[in-house]
Amino acid sequence: MKTYDQTRSRELFLRATKVIPGGVYGHLGPAEGCFIPVHSYPLFSTRAQGPYFWDLDGNRFIDYMCAYGPNILGYNDPDVEAAAQAQLKDGNCVTAPSAKMVELAECMVDTVAMADWAFFCKNGGDTTTFAVMIARAATGRDKLVLTRGGYHGVAPWTQKLGHPGITEQDVANNLWVEFGDYEALERVFAENKGRIACFLSTPYHHPVFEDSRLPPEGYWKKVRELCTREGVVLAIDDVRCGFRLDVQGSDKHYGFTADLSCFCKAIGNGWSVSALCGVDSLKEAAGSVMYTGSYWLSAVPIAAAIACVTKMRAMDVAKVCTEKGRTLTTGLIEAGKRHGFDLVVSGEPAMWFMRMADDDTGEIHQAWVAECVSRGVFFVNHHNLFMNAAVSVEDIAFTLEVADEAFAVVAKSGIAASVRNGR
Amino acid sequence: MKTYDQTRSRELFLRATKVIPGGVYGHLGPAEGCFIPVHSYPLFSTRAQGPYFWDLDGNRFIDYMCAYGPNILGYNDPDVEAAAQAQLKDGNCVTAPSAKMVELAECMVDTVAMADWAFFCKNGGDTTTFAVMIARAATGRDKLVLTRGGYHGVAPWTQKLGHPGITEQDVANNLWVEFGDYEALERVFAENKGRIACFLSTPYHHPVFEDSRLPPEGYWKKVRELCTREGVVLAIDDVRCGFRLDVQGSDKHYGFTADLSCFCKAIGNGWSVSALCGVDSLKEAAGSVMYTGSYWLSAVPIAAAIACVTKMRAMDVAKVCTEKGRTLTTGLIEAGKRHGFDLVVSGEPAMWFMRMADDDTGEIHQAWVAECVSRGVFFVNHHNLFMNAAVSVEDIAFTLEVADEAFAVVAKSGIAASVRNGR
Repeated sequence: MKTYDQTRSRELFLRATKVIPGGVYGHLGPAEGCFIPVHSYPLFSTRAQGPYFWDLDGNRFIDYMCAYGPNILGYNDPDVEAAAQAQLKDGNCVTAPSAKMVELAECMVDTVAMADWAFFCKNGGDTTTFAVMIARAATGRDKLVLTRGGYHGVAPWTQKLGHPGITEQDVANNLWVEFGDYEALERVFAENKGRIACFLSTPYHHPVFEDSRLPPEGYWKKVRELCTREGVVLAIDDVRCGFRLDVQGSDKHYGFTADLSCFCKAIGNGWSVSALCGVDSLKEAAGSVMYTGSYWLSAVPIAAAIACVTKMRAMDVAKVCTEKGRTLTTGLIEAGKRHGFDLVVSGEPAMWFMRMADDDTGEIHQAWVAECVSRGVFFVNHHNLFMNAAVSVEDIAFTLEVADEAFAVVAKSGIAASVRNGR
Repeated sequence: MKTYDQTRSRELFLRATKVIPGGVYGHLGPAEGCFIPVHSYPLFSTRAQGPYFWDLDGNRFIDYMCAYGPNILGYNDPDVEAAAQAQLKDGNCVTAPSAKMVELAECMVDTVAMADWAFFCKNGGDTTTFAVMIARAATGRDKLVLTRGGYHGVAPWTQKLGHPGITEQDVANNLWVEFGDYEALERVFAENKGRIACFLSTPYHHPVFEDSRLPPEGYWKKVRELCTREGVVLAIDDVRCGFRLDVQGSDKHYGFTADLSCFCKAIGNGWSVSALCGVDSLKEAAGSVMYTGSYWLSAVPIAAAIACVTKMRAMDVAKVCTEKGRTLTTGLIEAGKRHGFDLVVSGEPAMWFMRMADDDTGEIHQAWVAECVSRGVFFVNHHNLFMNAAVSVEDIAFTLEVADEAFAVVAKSGIAASVRNGR
């Protein structure tokens, strides 16, 4: 299999560094460049369709990052795009909202098990910040409990002291526990009795560079009871998992009911809209917080989201993505075994995380991922992957073929032996 | 002139209150409902074209709110929409950014006088928060100086203690001065020597419920020198004014050079993208801050912004909007005089603020605005208005006709006498 040439991406990246800090920001930028094998990555896309995107040099990739989550039905989904086009003729960002906003709120209330109401913004982080503000407004308390390694956006309060630009005050109200450690949570609640406004957590733990962790048996039921007992708002950051575990919400998937749920990414199949859903007892507090934005009433992303949520629900997209994810990861593990590699898969099948066993520095895994990317399968090594409904049986077969060849190349390179012997 | 019926808007609003906190959020919601004559307002739009939008009951409005700023070329501008459509075929929110992102950065650097680089997000507030983080990363200092009544978004740090959901720590690093008071600024800088990271201000002062205030003669030149001398980053929130005073930036308009400039609203004629522009000396600090979002690389709003900025520059949109704004406000003042009202206009002509003299509670002005809205001219009484380039000579003539009739109705109602006699 021929590996890809990326000359034009590299040339454009040099142009980009002149006018954009870091050239390309986010996970592909040099700020995190050390994390992933950037040399093999397509840095710019020219086209996307279904499960694929094409880079500036014309190379096709089966994209298992799904734009970091938004692509759930396949890029350029005909139903979502038709809804967006129909709305575009009428108007997008207008002084008064479209009736479509009410329709989407009704659709969310009808779809998401915990939702009595919905509120729409742009970023996932807009919803996590809003959740925290609502919890504080409702409880009159200041403190937050968060899980170590959990990601809730880029607002200063979500970051760590020591990150550039973060002050002590930004994070002064944050208390930390390990995900899944109920006893630790109980302890923090006891030590800060009457002072905790909100426990904000992802439904399961999906940090970077680490195995994903599912909630221990009975964990969420106990957490729900504890929060109710202590008057703490239980907020779920479903920005990344949302719709991929259960279209009714990931709290439903794990058998509990959150007070607030944050959605973004998959909600509009790439159209920029996010949603905070809540229970009735927090509706008044939500209405009291000053929270709005220039583009938040824009009707096109809202129309796209109605079509996307409706379609996800009709096709049971979580089931579809889970099955495809299971087939793929089973095949990847088998391919690894054939070449003497132990690929460790964690998390939920629709949103899995991979690493290699006996690979403390991650270099073996990184080398394998780079070989996959160079042959048209877009994986990353540091972050969970995402499945989408447009990935076909043939795409999975092609992926497994590429993965097999990539394992063979890595096996032949001797990198595993050199890493494991400490070089 | 027949006044509008809004039965369907009212019915939908009742439906909305069931599933959305407050029903409609932002300035039209009941959280701020007391501020404006909500009874006369169209709460939902069905269509927008050029300078107009139509509400759910089929009423047409000449829209001088311009979606709170984004509509600068006219709704559904053919050039901007053509660029968006062309990009939509290729891809929008994709794992890797489009080359269009680099083109927009180059376009901003080429257009905005102070810009050596650009970075794109979704909300205006994403750029003000980023500006503050960059200033802190660059200076190693924590404190911010802000102007009283200035608006920089809805992030907790931008709000006031006492607002629902805001903690003491959120605003602990904020220091406040009056806009335009150079001596006060100098004093705050002296009292906090070596501790101030950033002075963040709008180019001129455009608060709600108050006259806008232009910078005093020589103010910005002295502020620029003070910031340079004290090593404080001078950041301009050009989210609202941006492109309406000068396509090269509002700092250029007032004869100085900001270190960071925040753009949103008019940049994409309604397509959701915002931009932070900066000088070279802050590029490394900008690259060091962890700052990204799910939809920030989306290519369609970026393609729309390239078309919008290019067109705004070619037509000198600031000049066009300023001239139209001057004609309209001159006519409105004259219409007021004919009926014994002293309409006070402040701010810049492309983005003016109105109130009535001898009207401390604002009730006379509010009554007049309500009569204008009920006849198809969308004004608000608490916020600055916005001009757009699609407003025609006929639209201005129609507006003045409506304004005249509205003044006549208010004069006849006797509200002025009753308000001024303390009722």
